[in-house]
Amino acid sequence: MQTVIIGSGNVAYHLARALVEIKLPPVQIFGRNESELQTISNELKIPYSTKNLVNSDIYLICVSDNAVEEVSQLITKKDVLVAHTSGSLPKDILKGDYRKASFYPLQTFSKSKVPDYSKIPFFIEAENEKDRTLLFELASGISENVMESTYEKRKYIHLTAVFACNFVNHLFSRAKEISDSQEIPFDYFLPLIDETVQKIHEIEPQAAQTGPAVRNDRRILELHEQLLKDESLEIYKTMNHSIQKMYEL
Amino acid sequence: MQTVIIGSGNVAYHLARALVEIKLPPVQIFGRNESELQTISNELKIPYSTKNLVNSDIYLICVSDNAVEEVSQLITKKDVLVAHTSGSLPKDILKGDYRKASFYPLQTFSKSKVPDYSKIPFFIEAENEKDRTLLFELASGISENVMESTYEKRKYIHLTAVFACNFVNHLFSRAKEISDSQEIPFDYFLPLIDETVQKIHEIEPQAAQTGPAVRNDRRILELHEQLLKDESLEIYKTMNHSIQKMYEL
Repeated sequence: MQTVIIGSGNVAYHLARALVEIKLPPVQIFGRNESELQTISNELKIPYSTKNLVNSDIYLICVSDNAVEEVSQLITKKDVLVAHTSGSLPKDILKGDYRKASFYPLQTFSKSKVPDYSKIPFFIEAENEKDRTLLFELASGISENVMESTYEKRKYIHLTAVFACNFVNHLFSRAKEISDSQEIPFDYFLPLIDETVQKIHEIEPQAAQTGPAVRNDRRILELHEQLLKDESLEIYKTMNHSIQKMYEL
Repeated sequence: MQTVIIGSGNVAYHLARALVEIKLPPVQIFGRNESELQTISNELKIPYSTKNLVNSDIYLICVSDNAVEEVSQLITKKDVLVAHTSGSLPKDILKGDYRKASFYPLQTFSKSKVPDYSKIPFFIEAENEKDRTLLFELASGISENVMESTYEKRKYIHLTAVFACNFVNHLFSRAKEISDSQEIPFDYFLPLIDETVQKIHEIEPQAAQTGPAVRNDRRILELHEQLLKDESLEIYKTMNHSIQKMYEL
């Protein structure tokens, strides 16, 4: 099973690296950014090119969402399988006469940090059973968590991730604004944040809820509202309203 | 330096335990709930009582916010130091002729899990330099992070924790609703959540922001809004608005 990785960003690097680790090194890493490709190529001992795509069974497109369609047109062969790695695109975004698929690793990648690949969920969509099996095998070599997924489902996966990750990170930003305003080091909150996340590895988040809203502590809620303004005040009210609705308070 | 712990909940248990670990076991643990006191007393080898408070230099009140005032009246001695452990009460909530203080450990405690006490930030407020020093010494025995804090400051600490922990947990609840609706195991999101939190140990949350709002990806934002309703839709709009304001998009 030969693969080519297209792209030179974080997803491209980590997918290539994961494939090297399971002894299925990509036959090529292809893209436009020569210096990035060179760095990855040197580290992982994989050939790279900015010009000529080599023959392969599978092409994994690891570029940003808005470049997928254009890049997909570089593949002119027919009897090949082409998969994009985006969480928020249908497989038909791929424009070519080949078999189309989606191969979506649910993780936030950064170049400086190697996550545990075996824990990364992979979501697979293909046109037929054979391709599905092929991609399942590839993903199962890397990870313990491989699942089928339609575009419909991927939309919800992405949405869940927006709530559980993007919005969570933004709450940290707003929280840090508050602690900064009082010259309290935000690092002081890290043990509490770690514990909050540790808890939901063990119990359901709904059972783990604490704080003034779920206690319906009117005194604190009013006091806090007086300390806030603008977007942080809006977040405060919206979140408390949602908590109280969930617990029927 | 003798201490008495008043209360039998999670804060009482863990403060007592932390003091035992640094070889300053409380001379008594006092409260109303005899069976809880007995359990703690047996485990930590500390005397307990539900009736007679023993003499001590310091009394640490570890009861829920709305019980602090009442419990504080049980201490009738004068030349003693009494501290409550609440993040959201002034020290003057304590009603007695003794010296008053606040001794606030910033952590979410559960009985079944022993956190690393040395990482728990303690915030101290006292009436005079001598008491402040005394409580600093006590807290510094337990933790590396001890800081002075007025009631004004504690209010903001608590507010920061609401954003960084209570609201974060609620986002996990709403995220799980979405993944449950598509029969996607919420466990699949835990590696991504862990990574999100790991990141802010290394970089500022504002620099770590990802997702459609900060990319100003209108297509995804509109698509997501169509998938949501009620409180989750309100959260979605409020958070995106706040993200876009922060990054001036």
